[in-house]
Parts: sequence; C-alpha cells; structure tokens
Amino acid sequence: MEETIELLEAAQDDDGYLSTYYQIDAPHLKFRRLFESHELYCIGHLIEAAIAYKEATGSGRLLQIADKAIDCIEARFGKSEGKIDGSDGHQEIELALVRLYESTGNRKYLDLSSYFLEVRGQNPHFFAEQLEENDRLGLQQGPKPVINTVYHQAHKPVIEQDSARGHAVRLVYMAQAMAGAGRHKQDEKLIGAAKKIWENIVQKRMYITGGIGSTVRGEAFTYDYDLPNDLMYCETCAAIGLLNFSNELLKTETDSQYADIMERTLYNSIISGMALDGKHFFYVNPLEVDPQASAENPDKSHVKATRPSWFGCACCPPNLARTLPAVGGYAFTQKEDEVLLNLFIDSELAGEQAGEPYTIRQKHTVSETGQTVIAVEKASSEQLRLGIRIPYWAENPVLVVDGQETVAESSNGYTYVTVISDSMAIELTYTIAINEIEAHPLVKADKGKVALQRGPFIYCLEEQDNGIQLHLLALTGSVRPRFRSDKLLGDSVFLEAEGELQVMEDGWQGKLYRVHQKPQTIPKMLTFIPYYNWGNRSLGEMQVWVDKEDTHV
Amino acid sequence: MEETIELLEAAQDDDGYLSTYYQIDAPHLKFRRLFESHELYCIGHLIEAAIAYKEATGSGRLLQIADKAIDCIEARFGKSEGKIDGSDGHQEIELALVRLYESTGNRKYLDLSSYFLEVRGQNPHFFAEQLEENDRLGLQQGPKPVINTVYHQAHKPVIEQDSARGHAVRLVYMAQAMAGAGRHKQDEKLIGAAKKIWENIVQKRMYITGGIGSTVRGEAFTYDYDLPNDLMYCETCAAIGLLNFSNELLKTETDSQYADIMERTLYNSIISGMALDGKHFFYVNPLEVDPQASAENPDKSHVKATRPSWFGCACCPPNLARTLPAVGGYAFTQKEDEVLLNLFIDSELAGEQAGEPYTIRQKHTVSETGQTVIAVEKASSEQLRLGIRIPYWAENPVLVVDGQETVAESSNGYTYVTVISDSMAIELTYTIAINEIEAHPLVKADKGKVALQRGPFIYCLEEQDNGIQLHLLALTGSVRPRFRSDKLLGDSVFLEAEGELQVMEDGWQGKLYRVHQKPQTIPKMLTFIPYYNWGNRSLGEMQVWVDKEDTHV
Repeated sequence: MEETIELLEAAQDDDGYLSTYYQIDAPHLKFRRLFESHELYCIGHLIEAAIAYKEATGSGRLLQIADKAIDCIEARFGKSEGKIDGSDGHQEIELALVRLYESTGNRKYLDLSSYFLEVRGQNPHFFAEQLEENDRLGLQQGPKPVINTVYHQAHKPVIEQDSARGHAVRLVYMAQAMAGAGRHKQDEKLIGAAKKIWENIVQKRMYITGGIGSTVRGEAFTYDYDLPNDLMYCETCAAIGLLNFSNELLKTETDSQYADIMERTLYNSIISGMALDGKHFFYVNPLEVDPQASAENPDKSHVKATRPSWFGCACCPPNLARTLPAVGGYAFTQKEDEVLLNLFIDSELAGEQAGEPYTIRQKHTVSETGQTVIAVEKASSEQLRLGIRIPYWAENPVLVVDGQETVAESSNGYTYVTVISDSMAIELTYTIAINEIEAHPLVKADKGKVALQRGPFIYCLEEQDNGIQLHLLALTGSVRPRFRSDKLLGDSVFLEAEGELQVMEDGWQGKLYRVHQKPQTIPKMLTFIPYYNWGNRSLGEMQVWVDKEDTHV
Repeated sequence: MEETIELLEAAQDDDGYLSTYYQIDAPHLKFRRLFESHELYCIGHLIEAAIAYKEATGSGRLLQIADKAIDCIEARFGKSEGKIDGSDGHQEIELALVRLYESTGNRKYLDLSSYFLEVRGQNPHFFAEQLEENDRLGLQQGPKPVINTVYHQAHKPVIEQDSARGHAVRLVYMAQAMAGAGRHKQDEKLIGAAKKIWENIVQKRMYITGGIGSTVRGEAFTYDYDLPNDLMYCETCAAIGLLNFSNELLKTETDSQYADIMERTLYNSIISGMALDGKHFFYVNPLEVDPQASAENPDKSHVKATRPSWFGCACCPPNLARTLPAVGGYAFTQKEDEVLLNLFIDSELAGEQAGEPYTIRQKHTVSETGQTVIAVEKASSEQLRLGIRIPYWAENPVLVVDGQETVAESSNGYTYVTVISDSMAIELTYTIAINEIEAHPLVKADKGKVALQRGPFIYCLEEQDNGIQLHLLALTGSVRPRFRSDKLLGDSVFLEAEGELQVMEDGWQGKLYRVHQKPQTIPKMLTFIPYYNWGNRSLGEMQVWVDKEDTHV
C-alpha cells in the first residue's frame, strides 16, 4: 500500500491534478470530456480509500494526496468566471466528499459536494457544450458522441428527479450523496428528493434479490415494474450503491425499512457477486440463467453463467472487497441519541457517550431458530438507548433482558432497550420464516410465480439439484429446510419443496405447435439453494422465480 | 418504369457493372468488400424485377441490363486465375439466377447460381481476406470490421449446414436457392440439406405466426425453441423468404406441409407487415407489444407499436408490394404431371397440357364454413390431375365433383381429382376449426399459454378491446367466432372467449413483494382479432400468447 501511495505522490501534478490517462495521453483535454472521463469519479474513490486507510492505519499520507486533488478541483470548478460550472459524468465524488466532511469536520468538503449536486442538470447541455468547445478550440475534432443526459442523471436538477432513471450505479451514488448532504445541511428538500428516488426503486424497480438495473443497454433502470429475470443487469456495484444509499437514509431517519433493504442487497445480490473461492466475480447478477441462452442468444451474452476471474472494466470486484470488511458499519448505526442494531452478524461496536467509552458485542447463532446475544458494557452513567431491529422475517421474537423476558417499546421496526447500568445482557430469539413470495401483479415476468425466501435469504433452483429445463418445474406443496454440508457449497440451509415436473410426451416429436391438451405432470421434490451460493458448481441453469400451482393446495 | 430503366441503362458501366455507390464513391473497392457491399444482392433483385417486368409487359429491356450485369459478374467471379473465388455477403443472386434459368432455360444462369452456392463457406476466411488485401494494397486502411461468418452463413459449406443460423433473411434466401438449384440439377444432397434447414426452422425455430429471427442482434436465429415473444425480430422479409423457400420445396416434393407453412407465413407474419391503409409498414412483427416497453426499455426499442411510413433500410415494404400481386403463383403449383391447389384464394390458373390450354378458376367464400368452388376447363383430351390441399384446420371436408359427393384418393395432404372431360365443377366445403394451440414445452416463453387460431389465422388480444395489462388475462372457457364490421378494421371474424382478469387488490399499494396469496380473479369476456389486423387502431398493447387456466374447464 505504501508503495502504491508513493506512485500516486509521484504521479500527481503540482496543482494536485491526478488522472494518468489525461496526464500522459491527453493533457489538453483535462476536465474537458467530463461526460466520460471519470476524472472526478476516480478522485471520489481515492478519497474513500484515503479515509479507510486513515481509519485502518492512522496514516494520513493518502489523505494528503486526496486533499491536494480536491484543491485542484476546487480551483477549477465553480460558479466564478473562468471556472468549469459543471459536474462529472459519473457521480461518486459527491458521496466521497460527504464522507470526508464526516471524517474531518471540514465544511469545505460538504460545500463542494453540495455544489456538484446543485450544478447537475441545471444546464442539461453542459456535457455536449464541452465537446463543442473542444471542437471550436481545435482540441478534439471528429464525430461527437451523442450524450444521453438521462443516463448521467443530468437531464434536470437532482432535486426534481423523482424516479430512478438512467445508469443504475450513477443514480444510487448520486442519491446517497443527496441523502448525506441533505442530512448535514438539514436540507429537507434534498432529503425528500432522495427519499422519493429510494421509494421509486424499492417499490417499483428493484429485483427481489436487491439487484437494480433492468437492462444491459446503458446498464440502466427502465420503467416501473419492468423486471425481466433473464435480461437484467443487476450489477454488483449497483446493489452496493443501494446498500449505501439505504444506509445513508437510515442515518437520516430511524426506520427499519432502510435496514430491510440493506439486508436484502447485502445477503443476496451483493454477495452473489463473489464465488465461494473469493477469486471469481459476477458483474451481472441474473435471476434466471440458461447457459445456452448466454452462449447463443446475443441479447443475453452479458449474462454469464459462471463467475469470470476478472473484467476489463473492473469496478465490481474491488467494490465487493471493500464492502465486506465494512459490514460492521452496516450492522450498527450510531446516532446522537441512540444506537441501532440493524443486521444480525457477529460484530462489535465501540463508541463514546459523554466522553466515556462503551462497547456493544453481538453474537449470532442460527439453525431453525435464530438467537442474537448482545452484551453492552459502558463506563458512563448516562442512559444508552439501543434500538434492535426486529426483522420482518423473524417470527415469534422473544426479547430477554438480563434474564427477564421483556416486551419493550417499539417504533418504526426497532425495539428499544435502555441500558442504565454499566453492563447488560440482551438475548433475542425468533423462528426464521420460510415464505413463498410473490411480486406485484404488474411485474409481468413474475406472473403466476413465487420466489422462496428463508429469513433474509432468497433461494433459487439449480440444474445440479433439479435437472435441466427448470422452467418445467412448479411448486405445488409445502417447503421445509434441510441443513446440508456440501463439499462445494459448504454448510448452508437448502430448501426442499413439493413440486411437479411437466412431462414432455412422445407426441411432440417433430412438432412445434399442436392443439392444446391439459399438461401432464409428475410429482417431484424440488431443491432450492440460497441465491448467493449459485454458480459455484458446474455450468448449469438457475432460476429464482418458479411457477406456483395454487390448485393443488 | 421505362424512365427508371433509362436511368439504369445510363448508369451501367460498359462492362456491365452496376452499383452506383461504388461507381461514384469508391470505384477502387468494387467487389472488394463483399461482406457488406450488397452488390450481388442488388443485382439479384434486379434480375427478379426484370423477370417480373418481362412477364407483365413482354418487354425484355430490363432483362438486358440484368443480363449485362451477369456478364460482368461471370467475368469477375469464378475458380480461374485472377477471378474472385467467393460469394456475396447477402445471399439473393443465387435464387434470382435460378428464377432466370427457369424463365429463359439458359443453363449458364443455373451454373452461376450453383457456383455461388458451392463456393460459400468453402473458405470461411474469404470476407476477412478481402479486407486484408485491401489494406495491403492501400485501397482501404483503418480498423477492420470483425466478420461473423455465421451471420453470413459462410462458416461452412452450405451442404453441411443442418440448422438455421445467422441472419434470418440471408438464410432463407440461400436455402430457397439450394432447393431450386437442387431440383433442377437433381442434386439430392443439396435438396436434402435444404430440407434439413427447413425442418429445423419449422420444427424448432419458427413463431406461430410464421415469423423467424429470435433476436434483433444480427436479425438472427438463436437456438432451438428460443422464441421470446417481445424481443424477437420476425422481419417481414424473413417471413417472405420462408414463404418462397417453402414454395420451392413444394415444387420439389408434393407434400402439404410446405403449403401449410406458406399459408402460415402469408396469412400472418407477412400481411401483418402492412397497415390496412397500405401506406404504413412493420419491419419487425412482434407477438407481444407494450408501447411503454418499446419506448422505455432499450432492449425493445426495435419493436414498434405502430407501423411507420418508411424505413432507412427499406427492404420490407417493396418486398411485400411485390409479394401480394404474386399470391396467385403460390395458390397453384404446376408440375409436370399434376397441378396443385395450395391456397384458398380467388384466383385463376392458365396452363398448357399437350400443347392445349387449360384454365382452373377458384372462388372462395367463407363464413362459419368455407366453400371453394373450382371450375376446370381444358382443350386437350389428356387427363389432368388436380391435387387439392385439404388444410389441417378444415374439419369435415366434403368434396363434390360434378354434383356428386366424392371420396377421392389422398396423398401427402392433397386430395386428387382427375379431370377427364373438357370441363369439371368441383366444390369443397368444410367447417373452419377454432383451436387453442400450445407450443412445445421447451418453448419457455409460451409455457402455460395458448394462442387462438381460426382456420389459417392466428389471433391476438389488443388493448383497445380488452383494456390495459393484457398479461393479467387468462383463457378459462369456450371460444366462439363473431362476425364484425369495424370502422377501422373492416369486415373480419373476431373471436370471443370466456376468460378471467387477475384483480390487483388494494393491499399492493406501496409494495413490490409480499407473501403469496392465491390470486383473485373476476370473469371477463376476451376479444381476439386476427393477428394480421393488429396495430391498426390507436397505440396499445398486443399479445398473441395468453395464459390458459386448465383447472376451470
């Protein structure tokens, strides 16, 4: 790491500019092709890396580089005469600057973030005008790319954007910054706009796995309820972005709906992005895969049936790599007047209250029932208010505080325990629901189908357990968990369900169409594995949504 | 027309070369970019036009231009030293040369067609090598396009191609030439290869409308049973190509299976290509359309919900325009020893037998039953064998010959009447089946669905008759015809069917997923219109395949 930092120090221009492509290959085009240059996007990630490095090692050396780069950006961007009055084509620096403000308390970072949020979409022609100017100045000629302002969320001011449109990663990165900047500036309009976008996503444009982006073309959102299972994009980075956006809103407003989505994305569409070997990655996280379709139908060529080891555009693997060690930060939310426990993961929080330290440790065991044991220790004599999320999938939750079964006060999905003494032992037990979930009737792709969910985990069928032609299967009866130790998949809970298989009669030989006959079926036990585990065995079909035959029940 | 011919005469080079783009803009690249140049493709269409012009007017003036162009091609292409040993990137001239051989009896045309068929795919690198040579000679430099040889059916010799791959129009044009050249040369291998391709299409890769091409990317076939209804291409030209390919095989082998497909394509995917006003056209003929999807999901931007008035690449409208007046040629097939009546369309055939003329007139009336009255008159004293196709959708057919109900000899789907006297009156009556058709279970897109077919016509639901969200409808009961005279759609037979509508309960407000509940439905009468008639009213949804609820029956 120190070696990399040295390289960055050496590469950075005196004025703080840092983007080796432009420094070496096209210095005359610095900040002049913002629609695609990713110059500020990369500085945004540099800022985030610098904060993490500081937190992990105490060293501010990377932060100095980031700070110098920000000086350069501040000198070049803004409303004053001679400055560039516009933003990057790929949002990221906005959220990074909010983080840096939180880390340093220096208001100038928040102001710069706000500037980039405010300037976006004010002049929808900004990117195109840059290219025209380059042409006029003879800096770059030739055919000008067509700018799709919606793709960049630059079609109108961010505060007026009330649905999720354009490139999915860009949108959630931007919305996260809106929520964060809005919170720090107590800007209700900005927070309100961020919430509108969030509601549009989770109520109308999100896959059951927490994946987002219904099309590969533009890696983008499409329209309400348009959620095709085999054509979608569901980029790992987009799910991570939705996790962070939800986390930001949770900081703004205590409501477990945000933690529900954090959990949905993290436990499904995010961790599915990495193979169990930790060395292979999905960029695209589909809900239905047929290897033949991926190979022979070019509309599905972006849908990989196994995880490649790397990508030309390698944003997702490192994004996952930085998210997983940061999971503790999602498990707890520290607010001024309360601490929230959001996710049930072995973890520990160290905080300060009235200048005195406290720690909260949680230990999570799960089989057919789940148990979370929480130990709080604190030095201050002040009360500590701990909100524990009772997830929507936890049945018959029982809270035991210092050995006493307790019915605690609940609000917005959190149950509150007030820690008065210097230590407290809290135990939450619950049974884990297994549910057949259906999608809104306007989701055409899921009509007549259900997905299985156990606790926070979405399940799927794989060819390895159920044979080929998964679409011929249907659920007909009850579902039960089975604890399995699999050589390739490790220890996990499979689901076994009563189902049926549509039989292909011999009469079909040589025919493509015939007069309808009632389908012939035979009973068949179906095996489901957790979605995050798919694609870890041989090449095969996978399917999340399964036909549901209600008539048999 | 004479004016256009004059222009062509003036434009043609002395050596017969004719392609104004290359003559004016890139003479150094004549016949040097065959993968995309369409030079021979255009001459192919010129040949076909010239034959039609000769037949219609008796004038051979256009044929002279075509013949001079063929001289040029013969001089430039072939196995000898210094000649180009390859074929065009878009097949067409092969079938046109077969037609010209049939029209003139001049064997050289058949030989040139055979040459192009034989050379194709012998050297799969031919197209790429042309580009490399241009580069080497300094004729055209820069990045070389990547050649997809499968797209051009140039990946292996045509005789070894046993499935329908690549660009759909190119494939059926090539296969039509294979069948035609094979027949004239009595080349059983070539005929066998053509038949294998045909069987692969109609048994595994053809939509119920007769449309072909499952993807817009490469306007191509994909793989067996992959027939998505809302992503497909189903270009009008491709259906016309399948009509002509089937017609060619029918000439080779008397079997009504070929006429069945001619009828399926013509009555559905072909005539759907033109609006009832005769002035607007589909390039792409989908089986399911949602105008919002076409507008807001770029994967479906090629699927138009209404017929535009023209296209940048305007092959389909004139292809339709030349096919419709030629329908009489598909209704009858004249063979050496028999005449086949394939399609029930008011039409007349004038032929010759033993040097004496004969005429066959058919008059077709249709309501709930169909009646075809056939009048044969002939001058020769020889017997005339007339095969009348009994379509698979005709129920209880009754044949009356000169007033006598007759059970005639049948073979391969044709019922034979031998005309002995100088005139004969034949009457065929039948009831027209209305059927719920299902697709092979491996067609994932159609699982649990049926399409309605009345006689040769496939039906569809439109939003105008059934409201929005067509996917929430299902068929539950019986179907009956209703004769309707519609202001916009003219006189046609609608179908009315007992069905149901899935109700959206209020509980869905603000939710995207929930624990599954048995769907609530209300009964609803569904109205179907003939598929060829769709898209002639206001913008709206359309759907051919409809959910089928077997449990209610």
